[in-house]
Amino acid sequence: MGSLVYSQTWEEKAAWARAQRDASIAKVEPKLDGVPDAANLTLGSQDLPQAFLTPREIEITEQYTITKLLKLLRERKLKVEEVTRAFLRRAALAQAATNCLTELLWDEAIERAQHLDAFPEPRGALFGLPISTKEHHGMVGENVTTSASFVAWIGKKHGSSLLYGTFWNEGCVFFARTTQPQTIMHLETESNIYGRTVNPYNRELTSGGSSGGESALIGMRGSILGVGGDIGGSIRCPAAHVGIYGFKSVRSHRVPAMFCYNQLTSDSSNRRPSMKRVSTTGFRNAGAGKETISGCPGPMTVERDGLELFMKVALSAKPWRVDPALTVKEWTPYKFTRPPKIAVQWWDGVVRPHPPMTRALREVADACREAGMEVVDWDCEALDHQKGWDILSALYWPDGGKEVLGLIKESGEPILPLTKFIIHEQPTVKELTQHELWQLCVERDEYRARYAQAWSRTADGDHREVDVILCPPSFGAATPHGQSRYWGYTAHWNLLDYPAAVFPVTKVDPALDVKDPSYTPKNSQDKFVYDMYSPERFSNAPVSLQVVGRRQEDEKVLAALVEIERAMGRA
Amino acid sequence: MGSLVYSQTWEEKAAWARAQRDASIAKVEPKLDGVPDAANLTLGSQDLPQAFLTPREIEITEQYTITKLLKLLRERKLKVEEVTRAFLRRAALAQAATNCLTELLWDEAIERAQHLDAFPEPRGALFGLPISTKEHHGMVGENVTTSASFVAWIGKKHGSSLLYGTFWNEGCVFFARTTQPQTIMHLETESNIYGRTVNPYNRELTSGGSSGGESALIGMRGSILGVGGDIGGSIRCPAAHVGIYGFKSVRSHRVPAMFCYNQLTSDSSNRRPSMKRVSTTGFRNAGAGKETISGCPGPMTVERDGLELFMKVALSAKPWRVDPALTVKEWTPYKFTRPPKIAVQWWDGVVRPHPPMTRALREVADACREAGMEVVDWDCEALDHQKGWDILSALYWPDGGKEVLGLIKESGEPILPLTKFIIHEQPTVKELTQHELWQLCVERDEYRARYAQAWSRTADGDHREVDVILCPPSFGAATPHGQSRYWGYTAHWNLLDYPAAVFPVTKVDPALDVKDPSYTPKNSQDKFVYDMYSPERFSNAPVSLQVVGRRQEDEKVLAALVEIERAMGRA
Repeated sequence: MGSLVYSQTWEEKAAWARAQRDASIAKVEPKLDGVPDAANLTLGSQDLPQAFLTPREIEITEQYTITKLLKLLRERKLKVEEVTRAFLRRAALAQAATNCLTELLWDEAIERAQHLDAFPEPRGALFGLPISTKEHHGMVGENVTTSASFVAWIGKKHGSSLLYGTFWNEGCVFFARTTQPQTIMHLETESNIYGRTVNPYNRELTSGGSSGGESALIGMRGSILGVGGDIGGSIRCPAAHVGIYGFKSVRSHRVPAMFCYNQLTSDSSNRRPSMKRVSTTGFRNAGAGKETISGCPGPMTVERDGLELFMKVALSAKPWRVDPALTVKEWTPYKFTRPPKIAVQWWDGVVRPHPPMTRALREVADACREAGMEVVDWDCEALDHQKGWDILSALYWPDGGKEVLGLIKESGEPILPLTKFIIHEQPTVKELTQHELWQLCVERDEYRARYAQAWSRTADGDHREVDVILCPPSFGAATPHGQSRYWGYTAHWNLLDYPAAVFPVTKVDPALDVKDPSYTPKNSQDKFVYDMYSPERFSNAPVSLQVVGRRQEDEKVLAALVEIERAMGRA
Repeated sequence: MGSLVYSQTWEEKAAWARAQRDASIAKVEPKLDGVPDAANLTLGSQDLPQAFLTPREIEITEQYTITKLLKLLRERKLKVEEVTRAFLRRAALAQAATNCLTELLWDEAIERAQHLDAFPEPRGALFGLPISTKEHHGMVGENVTTSASFVAWIGKKHGSSLLYGTFWNEGCVFFARTTQPQTIMHLETESNIYGRTVNPYNRELTSGGSSGGESALIGMRGSILGVGGDIGGSIRCPAAHVGIYGFKSVRSHRVPAMFCYNQLTSDSSNRRPSMKRVSTTGFRNAGAGKETISGCPGPMTVERDGLELFMKVALSAKPWRVDPALTVKEWTPYKFTRPPKIAVQWWDGVVRPHPPMTRALREVADACREAGMEVVDWDCEALDHQKGWDILSALYWPDGGKEVLGLIKESGEPILPLTKFIIHEQPTVKELTQHELWQLCVERDEYRARYAQAWSRTADGDHREVDVILCPPSFGAATPHGQSRYWGYTAHWNLLDYPAAVFPVTKVDPALDVKDPSYTPKNSQDKFVYDMYSPERFSNAPVSLQVVGRRQEDEKVLAALVEIERAMGRA
């Protein structure tokens, strides 16, 4: 497949990276013969596994919960290698269907599985569990490259990440690395290197972003636990769009990758954000050292228990002893001693959700009320979410986007439309002076305080504060490609630094989710979103909801999710 | 005394502010007749109270611990008004001796005391306790002005602060506001408004800074519990210089004063930093919105128990429900179940402490060892504290100091030498681009991680990690005026965001603390500090030490202080 040469055009470099990826997938044995190419696939990819995988592979990848799978692995009733091979093949199939991978770790995963199978005794909380990973997070080991979706960074060597080292030490198997969009700042997944990742339920819809490779892969059960990252919705939006679970803990703060647990480097591109609960030490993306707002990694998974497992294992290693950006606190499960009090945010005062989203809210709110919970409205119009976005969008790019635009220019790759959207089309984005930056941080903190005080006031009447807000994770189901131009339903909680989980609720049903022809949009964003909707366009797409907690109440959010799902009749 | 007019010169404005201050002190009854003016005072002021206060005032201000005083107040064995009047008179005497006040709250404090005395039942954790406050923190109530030592801000109205509101709700009496230096960024206390505050043990030495009004006042027992603030040593250095207790909790983050609990304002100068444990919402100083490094308020007090009392009360109100910059954590006392492991930092690798400081370290280390503690050396030369200072000094002023220099220029007041020192004479200080700022934040985080990892490695041998570092809070005792030009012994822990407490140990004894004539300074700072020392110059000045804990281990630091003082034979 040739080699990577500095003088190559960006197209040649991107083609080289794709060839590398394809070669990694071509290792799959037995081959996945007969899978149609993208042009000949049906709209949904949900039937493909049945057609191309063995019954045993279907069993392994579909019929066990994570907990059950871990138990079978620990009891040596399943070989790690057999489990790994099943997920490797299913991941390759997911790639054919959705274009979600940057690399299949065929050799590495099988070698690792055999190594684990050779242990006299199983050990580690994740013993034998295959875990998929977002590409820009890097990996463990020395011979990894990470482009973070910049053509300029293709082939760039990368060290180990602290989080992945923890999972590795707990016995997991890394087997697939997944796509993310250019700049890692779209709520879809398209890059000049790998093209577009599509939704496994409908290839005309996005799998979301920026962790949209993970969502497409996990939406196909090509993985059951993956690692995403979230700075404006990048875990929650893609998880919601494919009907899986996702969790963004708090909170954002940056530390450099030079503290990779096994390697020191002065490579500045190799420095990564970190946040209060989960370390990003060792990740690669732009904006290292930017303190205004930054991302945090978290779980994306087929089941609720996967969220808690991820957090528990990530924090059990006491990562704060290495990474000073982390809160000194292990995962401390929360238990409700009485039914939670839930506030429903029917809309955010800016953009009205599509009918299936409103129906999902209503169904879940009703179920909660019937289960004995106090359910109130979260009326946030006075809290001015648009103001929040104006602050946040500016804080994403205090350098006016100069750094990432420079990286794009360096290779000559084109600026993609959603990159333009989040940098050039935001009127708030500009290179700030230090004093402008301070002023904006003051506004952010004022906004946060106003929101905190509004939340505290929910206790004014009955001395019972709202425990969590139930709200949409997006204005609707997965959007058609290129249309993810409203971030408010997820990004708002990044601005506030509130923990949030998404969970699947229903699917778009054209019979139930009819468009309201009488609605008059309130503003241009509202109109854009309103005009986008027709029941047929989104038919059968998953619809998910979001549970949001107060700052630093990560554990409570997951506890509330248990209560809510119980009210919905789930175990 | 005339009024404040915009067109006045800076000298006229400063004179007006001093006249206001003097008028507030002139209210003292009975008058303090016969106190010499500054030119005729003896070097030390420790004998003044005996000469000018009544035996009953001496009893009230000297003979009770805070705990005991609170008990007597609660049991109504002492009237709040009598206690308040005693401290008011002693504070006025401290002012005459050390120039430590910006305002004596004579009328307000007595009115408050009478109000509290009229309660049918005492209530509040601080019922009747007089508390002194650093001027720029503001106050409770509506008719307060706060200059933060800028002539340009003289007469500026100010709202309530969240922290002070908490103390007020717990029944305290605010009675005296204290001086701080120009920019609040000196380790001494001199401003163009109030001149210089001096050390009650020796008026040729500084009382430290920036909370040097508090230290001078409390060093005279004109107050027994005061509120300081610390961004580079501003609690610890002044506390150490007068032999009292001080505590800097973690950590720095800014929120604006617009969230004063009883007032909203859009006045941007009225926006203040906040940090992880104790709120500064409602304080006034420059740099609002600057996120790189910022200050935190904390206790300065005549006794160890005052530290814990302050923290407990400050956090009992759950201030994080109002101020989103705070950690969601009440004060959670730590208890050692075995003797702590202590690392002694004999020097910081840059500047060698003066002989009395080294003697204090040796005496306390020996006492700890004899009490059964494991005592090891904290050899930090490889950790390059000078590098830490280079990062920190730049992060103090990412705008190159433009904002504060602008405020100074606005009134025309002169730039004082220690302002020049901390802005103009630091080669690292310049206005940064956003990318330079990011790079510096990366370096800060790298530095923090390196330090954290070094601390974690202390467990490598015996699996027993060092609990606290015992170190100097300064290169020596209080310095002669204008000489506080090395911040490393305190500021380093601000850079790292580690909690630290100071406590009194001994006094300079020329017989014991002889100068080593053979020492060869390692660098120009070391030479400056070495040349400064002669035993006679510092004779009888208090010598204090510092206990430092890991990030977020505030409670452990105070617990370690208990153990160390017990080893020293204190109760």
